[in-house]
Order: sequence, then C-alpha cells, then structure tokens
Amino acid sequence: MLAPDAILTTPEDIEDFALKDDYALNPQYITLVIDAADRGDGMRLRELLDALHPADIADLLGFLSEDYREEVIPWIPADALAEVLSELDDDIRDEVIDTLHTDDLAEVLQELDSDDAAAVFEDLEEDQQKAVLAAMPQAEREAMATALAYEEETAGRLMQREVMAAPSFWNVGHTLDHMREAGDDLPELFFDIYVIDPSHRPIGAIPVSVLMRSKREVTLAALMEPITEIAVNQDQEEVAYIFEKYHLISAPVVDISGRLVGQITVDDIVNIIQEEHREDLLALGGVSDDEGRDASTFDMLKSRLPWLAVNMLTAFCSTWVIAAFQEQILKLVILATLMPIVASIGGNSGTQALTVNVRALAARELTAANAWRTLWREVRVAWINGTTLGFILSVIATLLMWNTQIHKDWNGALGLGAVMWGAVVINFTAAALAGTLMPLGLSKMGRDPAVASPIFVTMVTDTVGFFSFLGLAALVLL
Amino acid sequence: MLAPDAILTTPEDIEDFALKDDYALNPQYITLVIDAADRGDGMRLRELLDALHPADIADLLGFLSEDYREEVIPWIPADALAEVLSELDDDIRDEVIDTLHTDDLAEVLQELDSDDAAAVFEDLEEDQQKAVLAAMPQAEREAMATALAYEEETAGRLMQREVMAAPSFWNVGHTLDHMREAGDDLPELFFDIYVIDPSHRPIGAIPVSVLMRSKREVTLAALMEPITEIAVNQDQEEVAYIFEKYHLISAPVVDISGRLVGQITVDDIVNIIQEEHREDLLALGGVSDDEGRDASTFDMLKSRLPWLAVNMLTAFCSTWVIAAFQEQILKLVILATLMPIVASIGGNSGTQALTVNVRALAARELTAANAWRTLWREVRVAWINGTTLGFILSVIATLLMWNTQIHKDWNGALGLGAVMWGAVVINFTAAALAGTLMPLGLSKMGRDPAVASPIFVTMVTDTVGFFSFLGLAALVLL
Repeated sequence: MLAPDAILTTPEDIEDFALKDDYALNPQYITLVIDAADRGDGMRLRELLDALHPADIADLLGFLSEDYREEVIPWIPADALAEVLSELDDDIRDEVIDTLHTDDLAEVLQELDSDDAAAVFEDLEEDQQKAVLAAMPQAEREAMATALAYEEETAGRLMQREVMAAPSFWNVGHTLDHMREAGDDLPELFFDIYVIDPSHRPIGAIPVSVLMRSKREVTLAALMEPITEIAVNQDQEEVAYIFEKYHLISAPVVDISGRLVGQITVDDIVNIIQEEHREDLLALGGVSDDEGRDASTFDMLKSRLPWLAVNMLTAFCSTWVIAAFQEQILKLVILATLMPIVASIGGNSGTQALTVNVRALAARELTAANAWRTLWREVRVAWINGTTLGFILSVIATLLMWNTQIHKDWNGALGLGAVMWGAVVINFTAAALAGTLMPLGLSKMGRDPAVASPIFVTMVTDTVGFFSFLGLAALVLL
Repeated sequence: MLAPDAILTTPEDIEDFALKDDYALNPQYITLVIDAADRGDGMRLRELLDALHPADIADLLGFLSEDYREEVIPWIPADALAEVLSELDDDIRDEVIDTLHTDDLAEVLQELDSDDAAAVFEDLEEDQQKAVLAAMPQAEREAMATALAYEEETAGRLMQREVMAAPSFWNVGHTLDHMREAGDDLPELFFDIYVIDPSHRPIGAIPVSVLMRSKREVTLAALMEPITEIAVNQDQEEVAYIFEKYHLISAPVVDISGRLVGQITVDDIVNIIQEEHREDLLALGGVSDDEGRDASTFDMLKSRLPWLAVNMLTAFCSTWVIAAFQEQILKLVILATLMPIVASIGGNSGTQALTVNVRALAARELTAANAWRTLWREVRVAWINGTTLGFILSVIATLLMWNTQIHKDWNGALGLGAVMWGAVVINFTAAALAGTLMPLGLSKMGRDPAVASPIFVTMVTDTVGFFSFLGLAALVLL
C-alpha cells in the first residue's frame, strides 16, 4: 500500500485511518505515531493527535511503551487534556499529570464534571492535592472537598452535584424559562428534571423530552413519574444493579434525611458494570488485580504469584493422598496413569458449577430464595454427567487393564472399570457441592464469591478424585 | 417476627418489603406469593404483584418453580404485561405468551418500542407470528416487518425507528414548536435531536437539555455537535464498544446510503454489555450456553456435557504420557505422588494468562499493535513465577525423597529436586505460550477467544507437566 504518511493530511482522513471499521485503534496508525516520535516530528504528532477523540488518545497512550508515551504526552491538545485524563488508567494518568504544572492541573480538573474531577483528584499524591486545591477558586475547592467526603465506591462519589430540580407547583412554561436563565448552575447535560417538595426531597421526575413537548400551563405535579432514589452512601455495585434492572438513564441521589444532593447518570454506570464484570472474570481466573496494558512485570507478579503459591500448598493434598496409596500403585501401576483423568474431569465439572453460580449471584438471580433448588439441580446434573462419562471411562479403563494383563483376568479388568465409574460419580458429586456451596457461603459472609473459590474447588476435586479412585481400588482390587 | 401478611396491605409497604435494601427480591416476599398461590388467593396475588415494578415481576417469575409460575401469571397486571414480557428470559416468556390470546399479544407488542417488540416477536413460533401480525394494524405490521428484516445481533435490531430529526436551517423556536405538535411520531423518550441535511443524512446532534436552554432564534447548525454514526448492519458487540468508549447516551443509525433510519439508546446497550460479559465468563468456565434460573436439567446437560466429553478425551493425553513412563514410576514411586503438582500449578498459571488475555481482547486492549509485547511479558512473568515456585518445590521434593531413602543418597535427592525445578519452569513457559497464543489465534481467525481455550490450555499444561517431569526424571535419575 501507499505510505500512509503521504496521503494522510486532513483530520478526517487521519481519524478514518486511525479507527478502521471496528473502532479499535488501527495498529498502522500507532506505527505512524511511533515513526513521528522517532523523527521527533512534533508538528506531525500534534496533527495525528488532533484528529482523535480524547477517548482514542487515552487508548493510544495505552498501546505505546513508556518511552514513546513520554514523547507523545506533550503533544496532547490542551482542549482534550481534561477528558483524556479522566479516560486514562491510573498508572498512565500519573505519567501525564507529572508533566503538568499545578495551575494547569487545577484548571483541567475544573473543566470536568464533579464526579470525574474527584476520580482524578483522589489519585494524586497528598502534596499534589494540596497544591492543586490551593490553585483552585474557593467554590471549586469546597465542591471538591464535598465530593471527596463521601466514601470511595459509593453513590456519593459517582454522582454529580449539578441537578435540575423544580417544585411541583411550577408549570412547564415557568420551568423552561428558569432553565434558560439558570444556565451555569445546571449540569452540562441532563435527561430528567427532578420534582422536589418544600423540604427539597425528590418526589418525582420528568424526562426532558416529555417536559418540552407539554403545554406551558401544565404543572410539573401533573407530569411527574415515580422515581427510584439512590442513597448517597449506597455501594456502587448496588447502584449499577438498580440502573440495569430498571433501565434508568439518570437517578436522583438523596442524603440520610432524604434531601436531593445530586444525580447519577447511566454513562458512569456503564464503567461500573465493566469494572464489576472484570473483577469477577479475573477472580475466577485466579488473578487478584486488574492488569492493564501498562502493568509492570512487578504488578503482574503481585497479582498472580500469591494465588499460585496457595495452589502449590493445596496441591500437596493430592501428593499426600497419593503417597498413602504408594503400595497399591506399585502393585498396579496403571492406577497412576488413570488417576489424573478422574481429578481433571472432576475439576472441570466443578469449575462449570462455580462459574454458573458466581454469575447468578452477581446478577442477584441466586439468593436464599432458590439456593436449595440450585444446589439440588447441580447435584442432579452432576450425577447424570458423572454416570454417563464415568461409564465410558470405565469401559476404556477395563480395556486398558485387560490389555496390560499377562494372565488375562476379566474380574480384575472389570473391577478397575467399576472403580473408575464409582470414583467419577463420587468426584462429580463433590464438585457440584463445592462449586455451589463455596460461592454461596462466601456471599452469605458478605465476601466476593469469586475470590479464592476456584483454588478451593480444584483442591476438593483433586483430593476427592485421587482418594476415591485409589481408595476404591485398594478396597476392590487389592 | 410478625406474620408479614397481616401488616402488608398498602402498595408502598409491600414494595418496601419486597425489595429490602439491596433491591434484590426479598425471599420472604417470594414466600408470601407462594403462600397466596397455595391458598389460591387471587386477590392477594394481584395485590402483591400490583405493588411491583414490571422488572421485579419478571424477576419474581424467575424465582418461582414452573408450577407456581402457572398460578401467578394470570394475575400479572395488564398495564405491566408488555414491559414484563420484554424483561423475561425466553423460556419463561413463552410460558406467559401461551396464556395470552393472539389479540392481547398483538396489543401488548404495540405498546413496546419497536426494538423491544421485535425482540419478543422473533421468539414466537411461526404460526403465532402470523396470527399476531394479522391482528395488528397495517402500520404496526409493516414496522415489525422492517425491524425483523435486519439480521439478529445487528444495530438494525437494536435500534428504535422513532427519532427526532430536524434540518440544520431550523432555529430552536421552530424545532420546539414542531416537537409539541409532532407528538406521536416522536419516540416516547429521547435525549438528542439529530440534525439532518436535505438528503436526510445526520450531520450533527443536539442534546435536548442544550436545545431547551438556547434562545429561540439560534439555528440548529450553530448548536449541533459532531456525532458518531452507527451502521445499520454493524454487530451489536461493536455498537456496545462504541457506546462504552465515547460514553454515548444515544446514537443515530444510518443505512448504507448514510440516511438516518433510527437511533440506539444506552439502556439497550447495557443489556448487550451484560450479554457479552456473560458469554466470556461462561465460555472460560467451560459452559457453552447461558443457564438461567429456569434452565431445565436437560438445558444444563446440553451446555456442560459436551465440554466435559472433550476434556475426557484430552485427559487421555496425560494417561498416554504417564503410561510411557510406567517403568520409571515403578522404580521411583515418589514420581507418581509429585507429578500432579507440576501439572496442577502449571494449569493455574495458564488459566491466569488466558483470563487476562481474553479480557484484554474483549476490551480491544490487546491487538496486533501490542501482541508481541504481551506475549513476551507473559513469558517473562512465567519464568519469574516458575523459577521462584519451582525452587520451593524442588527443596520440598528433595526432602521428601531423602526422607524415603533407606540408603541416604544426596545425589538422588538433589537430582529429584533439580528435575522438579526444571519441569516447573518448562511447564510455566508452555502455560504462558498457550494462554496467550490460543486466544490471540482464535480472535485472529474471527472466533470467540474464550470458547474452547480453557480445555486446550489445560491439555497443554497437563501433558507438558507430566512429560517434562517424568522425562527429566528418566534422563537425570534412572
């Protein structure tokens, strides 16, 4: 193809080239940036970055190695800087912030909605925070303080304090006029108008699109629809669940006395949903921390080594079990070749149950109301799967055994088959119990049902697998 | 506590009791419903259901067993029915639909937005579909046909055809007046007004909250902001990615000729995001289908048995490898007790890499641009983890061996330690390669990187684990 550098001059061309069809950053575009950085061609870097949406600039930085980021960061367009910051992963964000003067940083934060600003601010080091606050105008400083007064991961942190509220006795015309005047105190974007009572409690909401289509003389009381309130100290995971369940676009946030203090909009919720899902996925994969593209080797070790260490210890349960049956193995070495199958297939059925139940718990589809039914369902499925696969395995085991015998002896061969069958059914049952009770128990204790579950479940299926297989063999065959 | 039936009479009390604090359905509330159903107390059922949001009624049906659902379904309030239907899982939805007359069903569908209606309609059996269409007015029938003409899981299916569009030369006042008149042709809710050119192509968007705060004489051209267009045939996963990336609330959908044909709003996207995440999670857990609360035993077998069967076959790779080293095991039975550790810990490190990379691929954070860097990063981490844990394991192995020796022989003991160390490092390397290249390869082939990966990765780590450990032992010790 033609060297793209030559043809890509207009912002439109550059953006089209950068995003391809699937809106993921085009690797060739990233190469263009890297080339420009190598040439130290600042004008070109500015040109390449100017064409991108701030979210894409943040994405680009994630794809670059640290050295190249250093080259590129100074060329981020000033008007995009604020949004880029709020999009970046923490580590990269720090790199960008370190290149900014305190005053610029303070200005940038003021451009953001109160919720985004707080999110960036809370990651600053203490001295940075002090300096930035000092550089802010009084009002902004207080706003920031209030936002940060709420606990992390609560509605208070998610919400923006700017809301459009009006008393129920106002009519549409009056409200519209007020909104035209009240310009700056209103949020930049909003989707609902909250109707409040004299003590500033929200009693209803009116979608903007409904308000503006109604006759000027209609009162808000006549238009308002029931609302779902969010408590300022509610956990963000709960808030996300409420938004999903009721398909909310925005919701009013109230303090302990029920007074309206802010609103949460769905665009912030999408991020929370992402986070929660990522946590579940990683926890089930035995990774404790979220590793971004920019994660250092050390970050990755921190998030993986501990779980592997735990797994190493649990693995010795198997060793210990097998060691107890060394004599049987010496008498009948085929046991050593077949025993991993029982453990491995049991481990998989345990993981299946675990995954399904962790998801159901996260979606609030598994609660005390159907816990027993769920457990029974899992056991039933385990028995059917175990009997079916156990039978196939028992046939294979029988033939393998028969095949190894010098003095052919059907009893021995069939005996091993029976042992295999029994061990698989036993291990599948254990897998179903562990894969259901472990996450249920953790969530009942208010812990994350995904964390540590996989290692525990595999420990159970390994131990039970080896023990049932070798134990039954010792009883039946030797 | 006091028998709740006695105290729960007002809708407010019932709703508070039903939702508890975390907005998940209160098991005790579900018991109330079941009791009422047992008593055949229809009035009470109506009372209990009336107090709930349609989404909660749908949730309730999910918690009930099929028999109880039969009892409860007739008492779903008519005005909630449409929304309840659009919230239900497919299987339960069919149960509800079977209780409806065609005319009622047709009416219900007309109450829904075109996207939701299509979603319900497409699940009907053909004869049902015909009957329902026949019972619909001409306009609705054509609308339904158009919606269904688009492929499943594309933007065309997600979008609602109702949009608010206006030419760029209109001014704010004119637009507001038009919206007041145009009542029914407009969507029930909308957040952006799309500005179109004479050939009906969207050229910009204006948030409603901005429009209504602007002076009546300002032209739309002066207010409009750039838009991100969605192509009508774009895959829903891509659409979700675009919404997440740019924090969109709504976006215009255009046909091949670039003309505005509908809009997608973020509330539909939240569901898609949920779906995509669920698919990844289940696939990594070796579960092929989504199992709802209402999944039958047969559904569960269908979604789990196939993967277990595949795993059974792959497990024989281990058997085959171990069988090849039977003599070594007979000479040195401690090998049989230690070999599962190498396989198990390697399997876990493989799962870690796999999970991290599947997530990164789904988030478009892993592309051709950083594939090699990612692979190298994984290998580096594998070596460090493998050397560390391998060393600890080698010490333990040495001591266990020493402990079993009648004629103490440090060479043999240290030899086994060295074998253990080497095998762990080798298996961790294999795990990193498999856990990175497998998902990368699948996604390069346009397949889902999560499906089948786990079984493949464990097959690699089991086989390599047993082979490297027993093989090295054969070389070094015997």
